[in-house]
Amino acid sequence: MGGLRYVKGHGTENDFLILPDAGAVATLAPHVVAALCDRHRGLGADGILGVVATGGDPAWYMDYRNADGSVAEMCGNGIRVFARYLVDAGLAATGGLTIDTFDGIKTLTVPPSGDVTVDMGSFTSLPSARVSAGGRTWPAIGVSLGNPHLVVRVEDPGEAGSLRDAPDVEGPDYPAGANVEFVAVRGPGQLLMRVHERGVGETRSCGTGACAAAAAATAWPEAAADRIAVEVPGGRLEVEIRAGNRIHLTGPARLVAEGEVRADWLDEVRGTR
Amino acid sequence: MGGLRYVKGHGTENDFLILPDAGAVATLAPHVVAALCDRHRGLGADGILGVVATGGDPAWYMDYRNADGSVAEMCGNGIRVFARYLVDAGLAATGGLTIDTFDGIKTLTVPPSGDVTVDMGSFTSLPSARVSAGGRTWPAIGVSLGNPHLVVRVEDPGEAGSLRDAPDVEGPDYPAGANVEFVAVRGPGQLLMRVHERGVGETRSCGTGACAAAAAATAWPEAAADRIAVEVPGGRLEVEIRAGNRIHLTGPARLVAEGEVRADWLDEVRGTR
Repeated sequence: MGGLRYVKGHGTENDFLILPDAGAVATLAPHVVAALCDRHRGLGADGILGVVATGGDPAWYMDYRNADGSVAEMCGNGIRVFARYLVDAGLAATGGLTIDTFDGIKTLTVPPSGDVTVDMGSFTSLPSARVSAGGRTWPAIGVSLGNPHLVVRVEDPGEAGSLRDAPDVEGPDYPAGANVEFVAVRGPGQLLMRVHERGVGETRSCGTGACAAAAAATAWPEAAADRIAVEVPGGRLEVEIRAGNRIHLTGPARLVAEGEVRADWLDEVRGTR
Repeated sequence: MGGLRYVKGHGTENDFLILPDAGAVATLAPHVVAALCDRHRGLGADGILGVVATGGDPAWYMDYRNADGSVAEMCGNGIRVFARYLVDAGLAATGGLTIDTFDGIKTLTVPPSGDVTVDMGSFTSLPSARVSAGGRTWPAIGVSLGNPHLVVRVEDPGEAGSLRDAPDVEGPDYPAGANVEFVAVRGPGQLLMRVHERGVGETRSCGTGACAAAAAATAWPEAAADRIAVEVPGGRLEVEIRAGNRIHLTGPARLVAEGEVRADWLDEVRGTR
């Protein structure tokens, strides 16, 4: 067929197309990536994970593109799905695994089956701000995981209303906005979260958002625990904060389907036919 | 793998999973269909088209399920994609083709490449009503194509606003609402349409909606033509109204990708693992 091989997978319903063919992603113009990720016209995904053999150590580089075709930095859900793919395809062994990314080398733990853990690096504090949504306003705690987050503590994440539109952020430190998490404490080590991702909208899960929520919750005595479970609409993530504010994120990484994009569809999208 | 084969395709961005394996759809519980059609957890589609060999004439039955797993009646975009699949897979010849459906036997014309035509049957008139959206109210023309439509003539379909929520329908004849089309006349034989599908939301295309718009436009002298092109957000459909109000709908039918759903994912969704 001359088509493009793919594997579809998701982590807490943050979904990705893995492209296993050597160099496949490098040949895809942004508008072709966008068409592949288009949920009606193409296959549909939050992003594309290109498999690139480095010939060195780490052996694999994750070439991650956003659904609009732009280059992305890192994604705590995406890299866990990518690691599960490498092990499932026999390209990496179970256990400890390093993967190179645009954001540097990441360390993961991949058991033979089940949840995958990634070391997300250290969080840092950002200035606080005020966030408004659904006609209400709350104080918010600022946390950076490379990208900026504002964490709002609520009794019930439903308080934030529809989240179709971005919450308003008041505060001089967030001229470009932030990802906003609405987080309720359900008990020691148990958080319930909804998230609005900057530039995307409400999503079913956000790996860095779960990490930010757990980081903010270190100031909430009722939530205190060694491991924090963060329930999101797409499932459940676990966060462990280690020495030096280093965050380990654990969660499901499911491979759903595999196949081939038709060459004639690709030619049409590329505009060469 | 023991997985489930699929082909993904779309018609004006109304997208479907075709399941070619004999009897595959019959074995899928509604919650499994819903998981397959879930755009984040599964593969994602507006519906599933099961390929069923009848052993008779017509040779093929289209077992169509909605994305929520319920049995669907007919879909002017889905059956064109289904017909294109049959020809592409060598299961039917190009030219005239009949396909059996829950709604009866349908007749299509499938050229070797390009647009596919389906005879949608005859439209009938329904009582008029009033429709409100985005703070405005319009009179609306009622048209039935098996399902009820209300066609609103506007200068610009943007007037209807976001269409995130269902337009309000005033009128005793539509207790369960209707599909609502906002239609502008661009010239003889040229309509521009946005549609809110009952129970679904705004969609990129609706085959019966385009037919309803063309039927309503028979009362608009500025739109008069033998063939009516209906531009929708997902592309362009063509409608021809023949003797006895019989409607022929022509439009693209694209096959995008093919592959196999993993058996382990299916087992998990089925709850058997």
